[in-house]
Amino acid sequence: MEALLRQSRAVCPFLKKTSPSTLRALSTSTSTVQHAPGIAGGKMSNLQILARRCPVMGKAMAVRSARNDLQHSVTSRIGGVSPGGVASAAHQRRGYVVPTRAVGMQNTRKNEAMASNLEDVHLKAGVFDTSKGICPHGAAAMKAAKAAADLAAGSEAKLAAFKTATDAKKAKFDYEGFYYNELDKKHKDKSYRYFNNINRLAQEFPRAHMATKEEKVTVWCSNDYLGMGRNKHVLKTMHRTLDTYGAGAGGTRNISGHNQHAVGLEQTLAKLHSKQAALVFSSCYVANDATLATLGSKLPNCVILSDSMNHASMIQGIRHSGAKKMVFKHNDLVDLETKLASLPPEVPKIIAFESVYSMCGSVGPIKEICDLADKYGAITFLDEVHAVGMYGPSGAGVAEHLDFEAHRTGQPRGTVMDRIDIITGTLGKAYGCVGGYIAGSSLLVDAIRSLAPGFIFTTSLPPAVMAGAKTAIEYQMQYAGDRRMQQIHTRQVKEELDSRDIPVIPNPSHIVPLLVGNAELAKKASDRLLDVHGIYVQAINYPTVPVGQERLRITPTPGHTAGLQENLIEALEEVWTALDIPRTSDWAAKGGHVGVGVAQPEDVENIWTDEQLGIEEKQMDVKDLNREEMLWADKVMEGIAVQERSVLRPDESILEMAMRLQADASALAAKAAVQVGA
Amino acid sequence: MEALLRQSRAVCPFLKKTSPSTLRALSTSTSTVQHAPGIAGGKMSNLQILARRCPVMGKAMAVRSARNDLQHSVTSRIGGVSPGGVASAAHQRRGYVVPTRAVGMQNTRKNEAMASNLEDVHLKAGVFDTSKGICPHGAAAMKAAKAAADLAAGSEAKLAAFKTATDAKKAKFDYEGFYYNELDKKHKDKSYRYFNNINRLAQEFPRAHMATKEEKVTVWCSNDYLGMGRNKHVLKTMHRTLDTYGAGAGGTRNISGHNQHAVGLEQTLAKLHSKQAALVFSSCYVANDATLATLGSKLPNCVILSDSMNHASMIQGIRHSGAKKMVFKHNDLVDLETKLASLPPEVPKIIAFESVYSMCGSVGPIKEICDLADKYGAITFLDEVHAVGMYGPSGAGVAEHLDFEAHRTGQPRGTVMDRIDIITGTLGKAYGCVGGYIAGSSLLVDAIRSLAPGFIFTTSLPPAVMAGAKTAIEYQMQYAGDRRMQQIHTRQVKEELDSRDIPVIPNPSHIVPLLVGNAELAKKASDRLLDVHGIYVQAINYPTVPVGQERLRITPTPGHTAGLQENLIEALEEVWTALDIPRTSDWAAKGGHVGVGVAQPEDVENIWTDEQLGIEEKQMDVKDLNREEMLWADKVMEGIAVQERSVLRPDESILEMAMRLQADASALAAKAAVQVGA
Repeated sequence: MEALLRQSRAVCPFLKKTSPSTLRALSTSTSTVQHAPGIAGGKMSNLQILARRCPVMGKAMAVRSARNDLQHSVTSRIGGVSPGGVASAAHQRRGYVVPTRAVGMQNTRKNEAMASNLEDVHLKAGVFDTSKGICPHGAAAMKAAKAAADLAAGSEAKLAAFKTATDAKKAKFDYEGFYYNELDKKHKDKSYRYFNNINRLAQEFPRAHMATKEEKVTVWCSNDYLGMGRNKHVLKTMHRTLDTYGAGAGGTRNISGHNQHAVGLEQTLAKLHSKQAALVFSSCYVANDATLATLGSKLPNCVILSDSMNHASMIQGIRHSGAKKMVFKHNDLVDLETKLASLPPEVPKIIAFESVYSMCGSVGPIKEICDLADKYGAITFLDEVHAVGMYGPSGAGVAEHLDFEAHRTGQPRGTVMDRIDIITGTLGKAYGCVGGYIAGSSLLVDAIRSLAPGFIFTTSLPPAVMAGAKTAIEYQMQYAGDRRMQQIHTRQVKEELDSRDIPVIPNPSHIVPLLVGNAELAKKASDRLLDVHGIYVQAINYPTVPVGQERLRITPTPGHTAGLQENLIEALEEVWTALDIPRTSDWAAKGGHVGVGVAQPEDVENIWTDEQLGIEEKQMDVKDLNREEMLWADKVMEGIAVQERSVLRPDESILEMAMRLQADASALAAKAAVQVGA
Repeated sequence: MEALLRQSRAVCPFLKKTSPSTLRALSTSTSTVQHAPGIAGGKMSNLQILARRCPVMGKAMAVRSARNDLQHSVTSRIGGVSPGGVASAAHQRRGYVVPTRAVGMQNTRKNEAMASNLEDVHLKAGVFDTSKGICPHGAAAMKAAKAAADLAAGSEAKLAAFKTATDAKKAKFDYEGFYYNELDKKHKDKSYRYFNNINRLAQEFPRAHMATKEEKVTVWCSNDYLGMGRNKHVLKTMHRTLDTYGAGAGGTRNISGHNQHAVGLEQTLAKLHSKQAALVFSSCYVANDATLATLGSKLPNCVILSDSMNHASMIQGIRHSGAKKMVFKHNDLVDLETKLASLPPEVPKIIAFESVYSMCGSVGPIKEICDLADKYGAITFLDEVHAVGMYGPSGAGVAEHLDFEAHRTGQPRGTVMDRIDIITGTLGKAYGCVGGYIAGSSLLVDAIRSLAPGFIFTTSLPPAVMAGAKTAIEYQMQYAGDRRMQQIHTRQVKEELDSRDIPVIPNPSHIVPLLVGNAELAKKASDRLLDVHGIYVQAINYPTVPVGQERLRITPTPGHTAGLQENLIEALEEVWTALDIPRTSDWAAKGGHVGVGVAQPEDVENIWTDEQLGIEEKQMDVKDLNREEMLWADKVMEGIAVQERSVLRPDESILEMAMRLQADASALAAKAAVQVGA
C-alpha cells in the first residue's frame, strides 16, 4: 500500500502537490450534486467532485456509480437477494467493472470479467498514468489502487489468466469507453445537460413542483404558451375520450389505429390553415423529418434551400432525404434569391424556413419568400411550430396574421397563408398537448401519407390526445383572448426589463431572450433563479445557440400576471447583480452584441399591432395600464375562458370586455335584487 | 359540341368502342366508394369509377375532388360566403385547377391560374390524347371538353395570355403532377392504402364502432394485445395525472418537459429489463431510428448487421446513420457469422434484430446471436416491440422468457436478457398507451440522451401517458394472467383454423397470420369480413410483406373469448369459401408456400410452454378445454384483473385459480349464511 501510494505520487501531479491534510479536508467536506444518468446525485465529498474531472478517476467513478445504480435497481426488484454479483454480463463484457475481488463478485464468464480497461491502464502505467491535466485521485484513487494491487498480488495463474483476457479484449472495440469519451467531451465543453425535475401543476398554472411536492417554483420557460395544457375544455374532452375509447390507439393508422379522432383533428387542422388536407404525426419533429426526407428523396434532383437557423428536425429531414442542400443566411432574401437563381428552373426546389425562430424570437419574411418561390418555381415549407395558436385571428400562425383582416372576415384566397405550400405545426406547445402535423394540398398530403415511413410505421397518437388537441385548436379559433393577453404580458416584461438595463435580445414575437453571453454564467443564473428565487428559466447554451450568445429564454403566458411578473423582474435584477452579468449598457459600451446595445437599432415592429391588441384605440400605452387592473382583467378572462369561449366580441379590447361584463354583472345583480324583493 | 365529341372519339379508344346507350347506363348506375384523402367518397357512377383509371380523366377528377373538398372546408368555415373563388392560390399556381370560366372563378394572379396542365394536354392533343390503355371519359370527359372548348373559343387576347402562361409554367417543375403520379403508381400496384375508421370501445373491448356509433364491429387485428388500453388501473392513473399535471408536458426534456413521470417511467423500464438505465422517446419508431442513427454515425467506421426482416424504423435508422450496412438472411446464424467473420475484430459492429417479427410471428435466435456478438466483439440491438408485456415472468419480452425460472426467482445475472446490450420496446402495443424506449447501460443511455437529435429536440410525452404506461408495466410485472390467457386464446384460434384447413403460417408466437397470397384477394377478404360479418382484420399487402405472401394478420387478446372466437372461425370459413381462397390443402398440393402445407414441416415450439401456461400439469390439451369453461374462466379473470392484481398465485394454473376462487366464494357465502343465522 505504501509502495503504491509512492508510485501514485510519482505519476499523478495532483497527489504529488497536495498535502495529506488537504486531501483529508477535501474528502470530509461535501457538496450537493445534481443527478444525471450514470452519475449518482446527492451529497459527494469535494474530493470526489474533483476526482470526476480526472481522466483516470472520472472513468472509474462513472463505472462505480453505474454499478451502484444497478445494484439498487436489482435489489429493489428482487428484495435484497444477490448481494454479490450485480453488474450485468453485458457490462462486464465491455470491461467496465470495478475489480471483482474488491466487491466480492464471482466471475462467471471466461475471458472477460476479470479484466477491466481501468485496471489495464493502471497496471500498464505503474498504477496511475495520466499525462494530461490535474489528477485528483485522493481517497477514491486509493481504493482503486488497492484493488489493482490485490489483483496484481494474486497467484501467478490468476495473473496469467487476467493478462490473456486483457490481450483478447484489446482487439475488440471498446464501446463503453467510447460512450464515456463522448460524454466527457460534453462535460468539457459545458454542453452536458442536467435535466430539472419540473412538475407543472394544472390547478396552479404557471406553478410547478420539483422532485418533492413541497418544493414549488414558477415556470417561466414552458412552451405551453397559452396554458392550454390545463384548459378545462381540453381536459374535459380528454377525460371523456379516455373513458369511452381508452388509453392508446392500438395500432398504426393503417392497422386499427385510424379513428374519428384522427379524422376530426385533421379536418380541423386543414380548416385552421385553409388547406385542402392535413396529416398528424407523433410530433412535429417527426412531421418535419418525415416530410422533408420523403419529398427530398422522391422529387427528382430536388434541392432544399434551408434557413441557417432552421430547427434540428428540418436539418435532420434534409440530411435524411439525401437531397442537395443549400443553406441561406438567416432571413436573408438576397442570399436566398442568389441561390435560387443559380438553379435551373425545372429543378424541383423546396424553401424550408420558420415563422417564429424559437431561440431568438426573430420572424421569417414569409410573403417575400413566397414571392421568390413563385419567381423561381420553388415550393415553400413553413414551420409554424412556435406560432400556431399564438398569431392570427384564428391562431393559425404568423402567415395568417399577415392578412389579419382578410382571415378575420373569412377571405383566405390569395393571402400569404394561402400561398404557402406546406405548413407544419405542433399540438404540443400553444395547444398544450403533444403531436405534430403538416397541412397542404390533398395530393401532397396523400403522397406523404402513402410514402413516409415515419408516418406509416408508427402507432397513432392516443384518441384522448387527438380529441384534446382538436378542442384546443377550436377553442383558440374562436377565442383570441389568451394570445392577446400573452402578447400584453410579453410587452410588459420586455419593457420592464428594458427599463432595468437587463439585456433583452430585440424581436417582434412572444419570446423574451435575455443575453448572458457565457455558458457557465447562463447555467449559474438559471440555477440561482431556481435555488434562491423559486423561478425556473432554463439556460440555453451551445449547440442550441452559438457560443458567446448563451441566454435565458423567458416565455410569458396569460397566467403570468402582475405579481408573478414583479417577482421575475426583481429576481432577475438580483441575479444580474449578484453574478455581475453584463447589462444592456455594458454591451452598448462594447458596440453591441446580438442586437443588444447597438448604436442604431433597427425598428422592431411587433407582429401583434397595438390596434390588434386593442391598445391604440384606447389611446393607452401598455406601460400606462395599471398593473392591478390588468391582474383583475386576467382573472375575469380566466373565468370567462372556462365558462364561455366566445364572450370576447370580435372588435372589443380586453378592457372593454371586462368593463362590459362588470356592467352586465351589476345589471344582473340589480335584477336579482328586484326579483327577490318582489 | 358535336365536333368535339367526334374529335374525342377519334382519339379515345374507350369512347370509340362504347355505344351511347352503354355510356348512359354506366353514368346512371352507381357504386359505393371508400374515402381516401384527395378522392371523394360516397356514391359514384360506374362511369366515374372507370374514368378514375384513365390517365387523362383520373387526373381531372382528382383535381375536381380536391377542389370540392376545399370548397366544403372553406364554406363550412366562413358560413357560405365566397361561392366563386375556392381553390387555393398555391394550388392554382401548380396548374391543377379546373377551367376558370367553367366554375366562374375570377382569375386574380397573372401568368398562372388560367393555365392548367389538364387543358394543356387536351388542347395540344386535339382535345383528348391518350396513347396508353382504355380511356373511359364518358360524361365527365364531356364537361372537361366543353370547358376547354370554351377557353379555346375565347378572344384572341385571352388565348394568347393563356399560351404565354402555359409556356412560362412549362419550365417549372410540376409538383402536384409529381404527387399525382406517385399516388397513381400505388393505385396501380394495389399498395394504395384506404384507412378504416375504427373506434375501439373501452367498455366493450374488443368491440369498436365505425364512423357511426351504431355500426359496431369486433377488432381482431389491434396491437393492444392485452387490452391494457382499457385497464382500469391505467385509466385511473391517467385521469388522476391529467387533473393534477394537465394535458401536455409543455417542453422538451431539457426545457421544462422533464418531470417525475419521465423519471419514474424510465426507472420502471430499467428495472423491467434489469438494465442500468432506460430512455423514453415519442415512439419506438423514433427510439430505433434515433438510436441506430446516432450510434451508427458516431462509432468510428461502424458496421450494422441487420436482419432482412427488420422493421422499417431500424432500416431508416441504419440508413440515417450513414454507417455500412450488412443485411443477413432472416434468422440465419450461418449467414450472420459469415458476415461478422469478414469484418476486422476492432471495427465496431451492431447486430440489429427483433424478438418477435410482427408480420409472420417468427422469433429471433436471441441467445445464439449473443454468442456470435461475444465471439466477434459486436453489440446487440434487440427490438422487443411485439414482445414486451407478452413474454417472460415480468413481461419483459422473449429475452426474459428464455430464462423464465432465473427471472422468476430474481436472478437476472448472466441470462440472455442480461447479455443484450440495447433492448428497445414500445408503450403503445401490449402496454396500451403510446411511446417507445431503449434500455441499456448507463453510459449508453446517457450518450443517446446527450447526442440523439430525435430525443433532444422534441416535446416530452404527456405526463398522463407516461404515468399510465408506468402503471401498465407494473401491472404486467405483477400479474401474468393476461398474457397467459392471450396465449391460450392464440392456441385455440390456431388449432381451430388448422382443423378447418384454413392456412395459418406456422410460428411460435402470439401472431396468427393467415396466408392469402394475393393483394386484391386479401383486401376483398378483409372487406368481406367487415361488411358481411362485422369483423375487422386488416389485409397486409406489399410492401409490408413480399408480393405473393399477402395475408390477414389476426391478433387474439384475453378479451377474445369463446363466443367471439366462434364468430371469427365461422366468418373466415364463409369468406374463404365465398372468395375461393386457397386452403392449406391447396397449398400442400402445390408443394407448400411460406411454411403452409409443406411436406415435412419444422417442429414449431411455442415460446410459452404448456407447463408455463399451466396446461401440462393438468394433463389437459388446450383443445380439450371446454369452451364454456374457458369463457367462465375469462370472466373470472376479468373481474380479478380489475379488482386485485395478484390473485393468481405464482405456481397456479388459470383453472386452478378459478376453482380455488369458486371454493373461496362458496366458503364465504356459507360463512355469511351462518352469521345471518346467528
